[in-house]
Amino acid sequence: MWRLHHFALCPFSRKLRLLMSEKGVPYTLEPENPWALREEFYLINPAGRTPAMRHEDKDLVLADSRAIAEYLEETVEKNPMINGPAANRAEIRRLVALFDENFWGDVTAPLLTERYAKRVVLRQTPDSRALRDAMRLADQHLDYCDYLIDHRRWLAGATMSLADLTAAAQISVVDYLGGIDWRGHESTRGWYSVLKSRPSFQPLLSDRVDGALPPRHYADVNA
Amino acid sequence: MWRLHHFALCPFSRKLRLLMSEKGVPYTLEPENPWALREEFYLINPAGRTPAMRHEDKDLVLADSRAIAEYLEETVEKNPMINGPAANRAEIRRLVALFDENFWGDVTAPLLTERYAKRVVLRQTPDSRALRDAMRLADQHLDYCDYLIDHRRWLAGATMSLADLTAAAQISVVDYLGGIDWRGHESTRGWYSVLKSRPSFQPLLSDRVDGALPPRHYADVNA
Ligand SMILES: N[C@@H](CCC(=O)N[C@@H](CS)C(=O)NCC(=O)O)C(=O)O
Ligand SMILES: N[C@@H](CCC(=O)N[C@@H](CS)C(=O)NCC(=O)O)C(=O)O
Repeated sequence: MWRLHHFALCPFSRKLRLLMSEKGVPYTLEPENPWALREEFYLINPAGRTPAMRHEDKDLVLADSRAIAEYLEETVEKNPMINGPAANRAEIRRLVALFDENFWGDVTAPLLTERYAKRVVLRQTPDSRALRDAMRLADQHLDYCDYLIDHRRWLAGATMSLADLTAAAQISVVDYLGGIDWRGHESTRGWYSVLKSRPSFQPLLSDRVDGALPPRHYADVNA
Repeated sequence: MWRLHHFALCPFSRKLRLLMSEKGVPYTLEPENPWALREEFYLINPAGRTPAMRHEDKDLVLADSRAIAEYLEETVEKNPMINGPAANRAEIRRLVALFDENFWGDVTAPLLTERYAKRVVLRQTPDSRALRDAMRLADQHLDYCDYLIDHRRWLAGATMSLADLTAAAQISVVDYLGGIDWRGHESTRGWYSVLKSRPSFQPLLSDRVDGALPPRHYADVNA
């Protein structure tokens, strides 16, 4: 059985939880706090980051959510998520990078710092300007999602892909932290509520972290 | 013919230049300055980052160096660089992420900011503490490279892979900016000088940017 070293509000861990569930890969969760990484965790992932994944029977340790997603794609046939001709696969991976790097850096990381780490771990006052900037950038990223959804059935094309799971994982963390203003983003809201209704999403919607409760609409699959 | 939108000291662009040359894929270079990105470049890459790559005949626009590397791997048979069983491929991709994210964030990005952007583009004084921190972290990353090279023929295993090209691309930018102290890193130095001697590396070693000249050892394949 796989053990996923994760943090409940880590969007990269969430992406893998969605992916494994969609592909029917069983796993257990091992909580790790990215703000207080244990010495021993560096032996599992020298980058010192969640997620990392272990399989004792296979004597395997994997790290980095994109490397792990590619591994799952190559080894588990069910529900391919990096699919189609090479150009489509490149488009899926471009969007994965856009959400894991730009959306993460512009929006998710500042929200996690200001609304979770500072409040719960570091006991500092949130920087309201950083929060305002992040929420303004969230709005621009959602505009781009709206544009994609208005032109395609799913973010990267005709079928659900790792791009959708990656984007939804990032958005879900920001939504948990009250950082998404859904007004004016009907297309993305519709796409997100379809994803939210999937069985793979339910464990993410019922996760709670100490010290930060989500807004009421967060776990409402009809919202 | 491919057109690679690049910046001479962008390590992600350098990785693709090495990869395309190793795979024998012809391309032309289109310079782009990441500190003064043109409006029109956002139409090519909505993430506003180098590298991006276009092929007019194929009507294709690709972005993100990892997505592009996977595309080349899938479409060009010669010299596979993400090779072997799934576990090896996961190890290659883990190391690609380690260099593109951790080494980049800890070392390359601060060096580029302090020793290039502030000097040449922004006309600000470099922050000597940021430089010292980056060089201390460079040393730790090179320790990890030494450890890998002492246990394996190449960074990710028995054959040269995208991990080697990625690491060498990052290191080459930092070396250009005088940020690598090679003392005590004989293993990595040996590995790097083998890479430096390859034909694919020569164009990188002869590139120069305005306002910042590399130290003498930078282009010396015997150093
Ligand atoms: N590229 C990595 C990014 C992982 C990442 O940044 N994880 C965060 C938690 S959400 C972390 O562990 N941060 C701690 C650190 O960077 O030291 C992936 O895709 O897995
Ligand atoms: N994940 C991207 C990273 C590319 C990247 O960060 N490029 C830098 C130049 S070295 C850039 O364009 N920065 C400008 C920006 O982020 O706005 C890749 O692998 O291609």
